[in-house]
Amino acid sequence: MLPRWKKLSSEVVIENPFWRYRKDQFELNGKQGEYHYASTHGSAMVIPVTPQGELVLVEQFRYLLDRVSIEFPGGGLEHAHEPPLEAAARELAEECGFAGDLALLGTFTPWNGVTDELCHVYLADPVRPDASGARPDATESFLLHRLTPAAFDAEIAAGRIWDGMTLAAYTLFRSRLPR
Amino acid sequence: MLPRWKKLSSEVVIENPFWRYRKDQFELNGKQGEYHYASTHGSAMVIPVTPQGELVLVEQFRYLLDRVSIEFPGGGLEHAHEPPLEAAARELAEECGFAGDLALLGTFTPWNGVTDELCHVYLADPVRPDASGARPDATESFLLHRLTPAAFDAEIAAGRIWDGMTLAAYTLFRSRLPR
Repeated sequence: MLPRWKKLSSEVVIENPFWRYRKDQFELNGKQGEYHYASTHGSAMVIPVTPQGELVLVEQFRYLLDRVSIEFPGGGLEHAHEPPLEAAARELAEECGFAGDLALLGTFTPWNGVTDELCHVYLADPVRPDASGARPDATESFLLHRLTPAAFDAEIAAGRIWDGMTLAAYTLFRSRLPR
Repeated sequence: MLPRWKKLSSEVVIENPFWRYRKDQFELNGKQGEYHYASTHGSAMVIPVTPQGELVLVEQFRYLLDRVSIEFPGGGLEHAHEPPLEAAARELAEECGFAGDLALLGTFTPWNGVTDELCHVYLADPVRPDASGARPDATESFLLHRLTPAAFDAEIAAGRIWDGMTLAAYTLFRSRLPR
C-alpha cells in the first residue's frame, strides 16, 4: 500500500484574479510538512472537429514563454460551481466562433505536483458557427487553424505543438478512435 | 499578426522550496497589466521501455487530488543550470531503479497560462537495472507497473490515467512511432 498524506490545515496565502497560492500542513508517516500549491476552480478544453473532419486549433501569444502556441481552445472555470460543460461551450464560442454538442472525453490534471486543477476535455464533432456573438477577453487574440489529423500529427512530430494540455487532450481524443 | 506582450518588470513575491510565485508588469496594446505565475527551473520526464517492449510507469499518491496516479517517472530540475538529461536520468533511477540511454522526444509546457516551466521528455529504450543505488526522497513512495502499449492505451481509454504530463508525453512518444 502506498502511504496516504493527511491534511492538517490549509490557508490562502495570496489570491490573484486567476488562482490562489495555498499552503497546507500535512502529515505523512508521522511527520509533518508544508505543501505549497496553486489552486483553481478547474478548467475546460474542447477538441472541435469540422464537418470535413479537420481539427480546429487556436494560435495565441503565450507571455510566459514569449512565443506563439497552437492549442485547442480552453480556459478556466469562472467560479467553483460553474459546470465545466458551460465553460467549454463559452471558450469554443469566444476563441473559435463555434458551437456544437459537447461530449466528455476525459479529465486530467495539467501539473500534478503543483496545482489542484482538473481540466475537463470535451469533443465537439461536428462544430457549427456560433450565433451568440461571444468575444474574447481584452487581452486575448487568436488565429484559427484547421488541420487534418494527419497534418496535426506532423506538427507534433516536428515539435511545433508545445502546449502540454493540448498534447494531453489529444491522447484522450485518440483513445476514442477506432484502432 | 498576433500582438506581443512586453515585460516591464518582474518580482518574486514568495519563494518556497519547489517554485517561486512571480508577479510581472506587462504592456499590451498600450495598456498595462499584472501577470501572476509559478516559476520553476523546468522539469524532465522519461518514457522507459523494457527489452520486452513494455512501458514502465510509477504509481504514487498525489496529495493535491487525494488519490493515486499512474505516471511516467519525472521531476523538477534542481537548479537553473541542471541539464534536463541529468534530471531525467536521476528520476529514472530514483523512481524506477532503471538506467538507459536517453533520447529527447520533445519539450512541452505543462500549464501554459500559469507557469513558465518547460518539461523535457526523454525516451529510454531499452532500460536496464540501475547500479547507482539511487533512492526516492523521504516523501516519495512508488509502485512500478509494466504495461504493453496496448494495455496502457486501454488504461487511458478507461479514464484511469489522469496525469496530464503523462498523457502529453505519450503523444510525443506516439508521434515517433511508425504509422
